[in-house]
Amino acid sequence: MIKSIERECQMTTFTIKEIAKRFNLPFAGNGNIEITGLCGLSDNLPNCLSFLNSSKLLTTGSQSNIPAFVTKPDLVVEGKTNIFSDNPELDISKIAELFVMPPMQQEQSIAPTAVIGKNCELADDITLGPNVVIGDNVKIAKGTIIMAGVVIMDNVSIGESCKIYPNVTIREACQIHNRVIIQPGTVIGSDGYGFVSVAGTHHKIPQIGIVVIEDDVEIGANCGIDRGRFNETRIGRGTKIDNLVHIGHNVIIGENCLIVAFVGISGSTQLGNNVTLAGKVGIAGHIKITDNVTCLAVAGVTKSITEPGIYAGYPAKPAKLWHKAIARFYRE
Amino acid sequence: MIKSIERECQMTTFTIKEIAKRFNLPFAGNGNIEITGLCGLSDNLPNCLSFLNSSKLLTTGSQSNIPAFVTKPDLVVEGKTNIFSDNPELDISKIAELFVMPPMQQEQSIAPTAVIGKNCELADDITLGPNVVIGDNVKIAKGTIIMAGVVIMDNVSIGESCKIYPNVTIREACQIHNRVIIQPGTVIGSDGYGFVSVAGTHHKIPQIGIVVIEDDVEIGANCGIDRGRFNETRIGRGTKIDNLVHIGHNVIIGENCLIVAFVGISGSTQLGNNVTLAGKVGIAGHIKITDNVTCLAVAGVTKSITEPGIYAGYPAKPAKLWHKAIARFYRE
Amino acid sequence: MIKSIERECQMTTFTIKEIAKRFNLPFAGNGNIEITGLCGLSDNLPNCLSFLNSSKLLTTGSQSNIPAFVTKPDLVVEGKTNIFSDNPELDISKIAELFVMPPMQQEQSIAPTAVIGKNCELADDITLGPNVVIGDNVKIAKGTIIMAGVVIMDNVSIGESCKIYPNVTIREACQIHNRVIIQPGTVIGSDGYGFVSVAGTHHKIPQIGIVVIEDDVEIGANCGIDRGRFNETRIGRGTKIDNLVHIGHNVIIGENCLIVAFVGISGSTQLGNNVTLAGKVGIAGHIKITDNVTCLAVAGVTKSITEPGIYAGYPAKPAKLWHKAIARFYRE
Repeated sequence: MIKSIERECQMTTFTIKEIAKRFNLPFAGNGNIEITGLCGLSDNLPNCLSFLNSSKLLTTGSQSNIPAFVTKPDLVVEGKTNIFSDNPELDISKIAELFVMPPMQQEQSIAPTAVIGKNCELADDITLGPNVVIGDNVKIAKGTIIMAGVVIMDNVSIGESCKIYPNVTIREACQIHNRVIIQPGTVIGSDGYGFVSVAGTHHKIPQIGIVVIEDDVEIGANCGIDRGRFNETRIGRGTKIDNLVHIGHNVIIGENCLIVAFVGISGSTQLGNNVTLAGKVGIAGHIKITDNVTCLAVAGVTKSITEPGIYAGYPAKPAKLWHKAIARFYRE
Repeated sequence: MIKSIERECQMTTFTIKEIAKRFNLPFAGNGNIEITGLCGLSDNLPNCLSFLNSSKLLTTGSQSNIPAFVTKPDLVVEGKTNIFSDNPELDISKIAELFVMPPMQQEQSIAPTAVIGKNCELADDITLGPNVVIGDNVKIAKGTIIMAGVVIMDNVSIGESCKIYPNVTIREACQIHNRVIIQPGTVIGSDGYGFVSVAGTHHKIPQIGIVVIEDDVEIGANCGIDRGRFNETRIGRGTKIDNLVHIGHNVIIGENCLIVAFVGISGSTQLGNNVTLAGKVGIAGHIKITDNVTCLAVAGVTKSITEPGIYAGYPAKPAKLWHKAIARFYRE
Repeated sequence: MIKSIERECQMTTFTIKEIAKRFNLPFAGNGNIEITGLCGLSDNLPNCLSFLNSSKLLTTGSQSNIPAFVTKPDLVVEGKTNIFSDNPELDISKIAELFVMPPMQQEQSIAPTAVIGKNCELADDITLGPNVVIGDNVKIAKGTIIMAGVVIMDNVSIGESCKIYPNVTIREACQIHNRVIIQPGTVIGSDGYGFVSVAGTHHKIPQIGIVVIEDDVEIGANCGIDRGRFNETRIGRGTKIDNLVHIGHNVIIGENCLIVAFVGISGSTQLGNNVTLAGKVGIAGHIKITDNVTCLAVAGVTKSITEPGIYAGYPAKPAKLWHKAIARFYRE
């Protein structure tokens, strides 16, 4: 019986000195401490590097088992080794790259069990994992990694340095640009929910459009992003999508949006740039959300939002109004 | 770097004359215009055919780049070619079939990498894509297409002319009738959520039933439809299910229902015919919803609904009551 | 055309006498009745065994087509064969095991199309279905069944007697303990939703942690369980998770929790033991829910809960308060 398995795989070790040098950050204290991973402050692990950017946490840090911290120049965790950074969270993210495990080693860049269609243009250095299926006329640019069990249908284009995790499906003619990350199980280009009802029977509207995913987008696990009915569904550059998100057909999402788990965006709706939709937000179809809007968790947006700001409730209102209303709701 | 990829795959071209003739529709204007795809009015694309069924949109249509419209006999888009139809949306859906891309070409109808179990009855003309896995005693009727990476477990039956998209899983003994479409990643026949709790420990109730999907059902991407505990879960003829929907064990859904993204239906609940559940609706277990009920988005139905009509809110009430209550909620 | 397919696969038959003897339960009535399956009382099927544990249902049982019931010693269904049990629901669950179909027969325990990496430690008696992909340094203990299309990435450990259903993805270094069941399509170890935003651009925080799934956990179809950012996400022993659930990075879930469909738990939140989250509950990040808390459907928990009890509403409050508030909400 397996009771507890040591993380034997995590063999990487760096000294503080090596880390500080590599990222060009000053440090104070013992630079020879060996770090085997990173941890949060509450994880409280020996041999790990953590970070901290508030003076309120200095005492906790100081009393912890953690031997070293990335912190701000004006904060010093007493009794520990300190690496100084103007943005500790950003720099520890960069340091984290040192400890990333290769997800799936393989000796050959194209697995012998990968199935590849006709007339494909595949860059020399791409990786196709075991049992990957690639249709006809598919283009994949350099540095892209397609992991085991992914299915890419005909006429799909994928840009440079993308990571497509296992069991993802990308349906016909969709376009994935550069540095896109798609977590396992996600579906790109499923048919939109479009039917014409005649005398109680629902006739399918063939969904002949595509999905375009722009540069630097990340999409979480088990999402569904529908293809356009006639034209396209588009996810803008730098937008980050969490797990289990539904994007309806013909939706256009702007740049650098944050779209959290269980968000659903109905067909033909348009989001501007820098829109944040917290968990479980729902957006009605055929409306527009302007730039810099934030919708709090579970908000249900039924009408276009033309003013930047924070919104909440169902139907969604400016958050202040909703907070007052919900206070009245609970008041006895 | 891929900046923008032309949709080179979309090579199909038809003249208006050809389209009108093929669908037996009258037209007025230049019949020699060549159409390469369809678009919505707001897409405003040259070389595309659009549709329009309201006099309010005539000016927009007239001023657009779109060269031709399917419209009603009493509506004429000035300066454009008009195809006349009693139901423009239905007819443009039929026309859309002309522009559907084959999702995945393959030279052989049974891919050499498909794995097929014992004692299967497979019609001669079915398609099994690369890496499809078919268990023992599986029946698949004529014209059905099973795409790459689909897993069909033992004793499953699938009817005629179904389309099962990549990476779908159909678990043991489930029955799929005719012309059923299942989008990628969806799971049919997962175990229901059934446990007997004794002294704080939850003992699994083996889920030995099946799922039956009747004719002409469509199911979206990444749904989960649980098998019956002892007997069956059933999705009625012509019902259309969107992405990321959860159907619990022993649920019985009637005919021609519309079930939108993120709907969850708890175990043993029964829906009549023509029930519409908008996005994120939740239905409690062991209740009945009668025919012709519509639940607005995010409604939470906790009790049986015996009267047709429109319902909203949590707990769900007739929509009129909810609209009044929510108006009071926000009123200062 | 397939109109109705008989469940020919279900060939198992037992007499009441055999069942009673095997489970050491007394019975009264005809012990030679042959049972071909189980059913609920409302299924009302001949040849099936049902159960019943309320005197209110005795008449319905008596008038049904069902020939035999598991019931309590002080309840007798007139005119039927009765098997007596102190816990009819628990005992019929055990009896149900007799009728479980093997999900996917195969002659060889390791399918010839399974792909296995280097340095794996695989117990002799495990089953790897067709097209399973196993990375490097993977450990799988005895009795575990990995079904078709599953992808297990490098350095994963899986304990004894687990069942991993088709098209599941388990990402690098995750640890699955013993007797864990994972329904199809679920993703274990996807990257958490972690970004550092600098001047409107969202920089990915590499997610270098893992997921630990303890003994006797079951996870439904198409869930997404994110790996820890630096350390771990953990699902405690005996916890049961329904379909389409999202568990964020660094979440720690205690033992014997019940987590129903569409629940979302945001990053770094901790649940105690015996916590029940009904359908569509959402939990904010970085909070703690103490032992023995129940959240009713659609509750949105925004702050830590330190007292056991029942909670409801958004923001979640003790259920009594919410029930009063919602009554006022609807009152005209």
